[in-house]
Amino acid sequence: MSYQAPVKDMLFCMQELAALEEVARLPGFEDAGIDTAQAVLEECAKFNEGVVAPLNWEGDKQPSSWKDGRVTTTPGFKEAFRGFVEGGWQGLQHSVDFGGQGLPKTIGSACGEMLNSANLSFALCPLLTDGCIEALLTAGSEAQQQTYIPKMISGQWTGTMNLTEPQAGSDLALVRTRAEPQPDGSFKLFGTKIFITYGEHDMAENIVHLVLARVSGAPEGVKGISLFIVPKFLVKADGSLGERNDVHCVSIEHKLGIKASPTAVLQYGDHGGAVGYLVGQENRGLEYMFIMMNAARYAVGVQGIAVAERAYQKAVAYAKDRVQSRPVDGSVRGSAPIIHHPDVRRMLMTMRSHTEGCRAMAIVAAAAYDAAHAHPDAEVRAQNEAFYEFMVPLVKGYSTEMSVEVASLGVQVHGGMGYIEETGAAQYYRDAKILTIYEGTTAIQANDLVGRKTARDGGGTAKAIAAQIARTEAELAARDSVAARAVLKRLTAARTAFEQVVDFIAGQTKASPNAVFAGSVPYLLLAGSLMAGWQLARALLVAETRAAAGDDVAFMNAKVATARFYAEHQLSKLPGLRDSIVEGADSVTALALDAF
Amino acid sequence: MSYQAPVKDMLFCMQELAALEEVARLPGFEDAGIDTAQAVLEECAKFNEGVVAPLNWEGDKQPSSWKDGRVTTTPGFKEAFRGFVEGGWQGLQHSVDFGGQGLPKTIGSACGEMLNSANLSFALCPLLTDGCIEALLTAGSEAQQQTYIPKMISGQWTGTMNLTEPQAGSDLALVRTRAEPQPDGSFKLFGTKIFITYGEHDMAENIVHLVLARVSGAPEGVKGISLFIVPKFLVKADGSLGERNDVHCVSIEHKLGIKASPTAVLQYGDHGGAVGYLVGQENRGLEYMFIMMNAARYAVGVQGIAVAERAYQKAVAYAKDRVQSRPVDGSVRGSAPIIHHPDVRRMLMTMRSHTEGCRAMAIVAAAAYDAAHAHPDAEVRAQNEAFYEFMVPLVKGYSTEMSVEVASLGVQVHGGMGYIEETGAAQYYRDAKILTIYEGTTAIQANDLVGRKTARDGGGTAKAIAAQIARTEAELAARDSVAARAVLKRLTAARTAFEQVVDFIAGQTKASPNAVFAGSVPYLLLAGSLMAGWQLARALLVAETRAAAGDDVAFMNAKVATARFYAEHQLSKLPGLRDSIVEGADSVTALALDAF
Repeated sequence: MSYQAPVKDMLFCMQELAALEEVARLPGFEDAGIDTAQAVLEECAKFNEGVVAPLNWEGDKQPSSWKDGRVTTTPGFKEAFRGFVEGGWQGLQHSVDFGGQGLPKTIGSACGEMLNSANLSFALCPLLTDGCIEALLTAGSEAQQQTYIPKMISGQWTGTMNLTEPQAGSDLALVRTRAEPQPDGSFKLFGTKIFITYGEHDMAENIVHLVLARVSGAPEGVKGISLFIVPKFLVKADGSLGERNDVHCVSIEHKLGIKASPTAVLQYGDHGGAVGYLVGQENRGLEYMFIMMNAARYAVGVQGIAVAERAYQKAVAYAKDRVQSRPVDGSVRGSAPIIHHPDVRRMLMTMRSHTEGCRAMAIVAAAAYDAAHAHPDAEVRAQNEAFYEFMVPLVKGYSTEMSVEVASLGVQVHGGMGYIEETGAAQYYRDAKILTIYEGTTAIQANDLVGRKTARDGGGTAKAIAAQIARTEAELAARDSVAARAVLKRLTAARTAFEQVVDFIAGQTKASPNAVFAGSVPYLLLAGSLMAGWQLARALLVAETRAAAGDDVAFMNAKVATARFYAEHQLSKLPGLRDSIVEGADSVTALALDAF
Repeated sequence: MSYQAPVKDMLFCMQELAALEEVARLPGFEDAGIDTAQAVLEECAKFNEGVVAPLNWEGDKQPSSWKDGRVTTTPGFKEAFRGFVEGGWQGLQHSVDFGGQGLPKTIGSACGEMLNSANLSFALCPLLTDGCIEALLTAGSEAQQQTYIPKMISGQWTGTMNLTEPQAGSDLALVRTRAEPQPDGSFKLFGTKIFITYGEHDMAENIVHLVLARVSGAPEGVKGISLFIVPKFLVKADGSLGERNDVHCVSIEHKLGIKASPTAVLQYGDHGGAVGYLVGQENRGLEYMFIMMNAARYAVGVQGIAVAERAYQKAVAYAKDRVQSRPVDGSVRGSAPIIHHPDVRRMLMTMRSHTEGCRAMAIVAAAAYDAAHAHPDAEVRAQNEAFYEFMVPLVKGYSTEMSVEVASLGVQVHGGMGYIEETGAAQYYRDAKILTIYEGTTAIQANDLVGRKTARDGGGTAKAIAAQIARTEAELAARDSVAARAVLKRLTAARTAFEQVVDFIAGQTKASPNAVFAGSVPYLLLAGSLMAGWQLARALLVAETRAAAGDDVAFMNAKVATARFYAEHQLSKLPGLRDSIVEGADSVTALALDAF
């Protein structure tokens, strides 16, 4: 069950698709060229392959456990986390002003993928801490930033997001946890939060909970929600740890997967009130939490890519090893490794092309994020911001949906052995299924895509991206290879389908909201698949040129083959999806409610 | 987690789609009209809802366990199995000559669905026994039939299929278990069999193992495999149980799902040799085992429908109960049950239409089976045989693939709660995943569909079915409803896509086997989806007529809505699949082996 980080493909994406050399021209990222990227990725690969990956199956066998309010993580996790902290990995993308390494997201994204491939459950702790840091950087006071951020960036403390309550999942308007103002300016919090990832654990000295709650007398709904810092241990003026706060883990969940990651039920204020500190302004909590969520959503998308990569590697290894049956073309006499069978190849190519396509999409999106934050020109920043914002629900929604399919194929490649837990393929199938749910289900991502990202600007951003895709088509049309022609055909049809759906959505969201939202997830899948396929088409253009020049021919030919497969077996589905969305909306809601 | 058998839909399928009244005209099935069907189904529903279904989650929590060679099943299983035996359920479809009830498969199929919806793990034991009975009926000697069949039909003894060995899964040519002839005409068997469902358990007095093995000196490959009866306890001349045979369960597997069903490793002959009796002729074992497998494959397809139905019911109940967020159309002020959200409806409709479509397909196939066996006219028998044989890989392959998708959607509808094991939705997601693997993976079904069922007769049977579909299209064209027009459009395109793929396969299997088998599973999915959609289209025709006559209007309108949804959201995918199969074959195998 070893893992080998796909460093080469990651560097290819950065260099050839995400224009890393342009990222390295942005102020603050001057050192982040390809040499830095390569050095960081290799170091990161070493740590994750050697230290974190071997704990993955261990965590599944021996999950985090709860006793008397304390959570003990899987044996080995504490030590691995110490290594993670010592390596400075938590601070990779964070500001040097707070002790981080200040690397661009373009590079950080790939490192995140490695950590998650190595161990999804382990990686969740840093993932949440990252979101916490983002939120405090945006909305925290200077004092709060000084108190909490350096400790989180160093990895000494970890962070959590406390949104969900039993009655408030996707619908945060229903949050009931209350915060009572105290004379000293602090608050006391009372309530129950559920599904809190790493809400309690033994890997760090302190845990910084960011908690959504209502100040007494606040308006109902989402406009009455504020954000609070509630540290597990109160922090003294000198930065040392003081009293234990009144937030307690009363249980952890028994889950389908990511079992090593403790999912806590946290009880606030059962012993007089949990001390909390308001972040930013009252009643703007949801807005701040969205900053955190946006970072986390992108990161969860990367988790999808990560688990897909790991499932793919495992399936390939098995398919090369397992000998069953003769190839149908007679190319091998007698039984052969199953990778010789066309359907096994189809499954592996599906897994591979999904993973590479989504990776390319995510790294290109990351480069836009970097430009949106660091480019000196406001207009360039705005363009990149729009692009990145459009991509976030796709990276999250599409990469995770594909990861469930890929993990399922991973089990399938293993046949009966895949169903035996000790084989390890089933763990990915179980682990992946959370990814389409947490940090906003696929439907929630699709609502975002339809409402804020498409309808709001009348489809402007979407159409601008379609125009970029059309330029890639023009480049493909200038080639005369079979592969380029095949990809061009499917990409053009897919992009056209996308434009038609965008018109439908931009035109109908107000007039026929049910019809539009009936197709919201199919639209997300269509758009996500198109973006992945577009990046693979761009990869093909580069790869053909480089292969023709004799440059790393085997790798480049593989890129070409993968891009073509994706176009012919994934992009080919999109016109059918268009039909469902544009012409099939009525039948989604036609069945009478009491007929269900 | 209660289960309600969909008796009404089952009866609709039998009566309106499978022409039960014609089945009841077949010799031997004279009593099997709609009244009998209704009475049997209601009784069956009562037993499964009340006795078997409540043990489903229990079995997951407390799986079968192994100690010192003995397997103890989940608490309650023994008692439930006794009830199953006492109710005569094992003998439902078996000949009255051996103590069975002699009902047609058209009715038996629905009963099988109920048992599997209630408890997939429990239902596996009777499923394997049924296969065992079929094999002995076809190939066993009269003495063997008299000794073993009545006891299995009564449920006193159960049966198993022993095919797989560590090195021989899909590829039975690699079977190594050997059988040494003894002077008394019996054999002694030596070897290891794995993945033996209910290979050891405590619910019955005796277990009849049917075992594939090689007689010493037999030819290599599949032509040297013979079939043996190896009873757990030897049977004396008077039918009573004698000595314990030398077959022992050395362990059971730790699986992703169907945990209550013990999956045994059986060791034959470690203490001198397991006594076995040759079934039929030497070296024809695979042929006989295929009889058993064909019955089992159909039954596994029904398992897919069954788990999908259960997942659907659970998701509907949650969606009606869980309150989150306002409907986008403003139809409810404030937060509403999530069934009001269009994407939840889309998910539920996907689950529902898949399930109803596959159920209709399976029951129609069952009626063909009955006619193929009992019709007095040889030509009618042959036609029905061809139709049934074409449907078996589709019922097995398509219904199980859809069940994985449906179970995954079932988790998704539950959001975060779906990921918590105690909710129960995750169990279906884990359980369903075995169905695309055992009794031949989807790829093995697809090989059968391509080779024996399509290419062998030059696509004749496939084209004949397409012609039947075209007749349904003509009936739709004669209607002027919006729903009929919508279904007609998609069904025509889907049937045309199917015909083009059939031409490709019939024409290319010999010349370009890699290209054809690269598309074998997509072809299976295309054909399966078409058959399900066709049956739903036929249901729409009936339902429109009956609704117009004021007959059970709500149910009939639901049928119409479901058929239209399926056409617009599933059949609409098939032209894209055609493109992948016919135009995308090369890219499946283009990647160099060492590039994986």
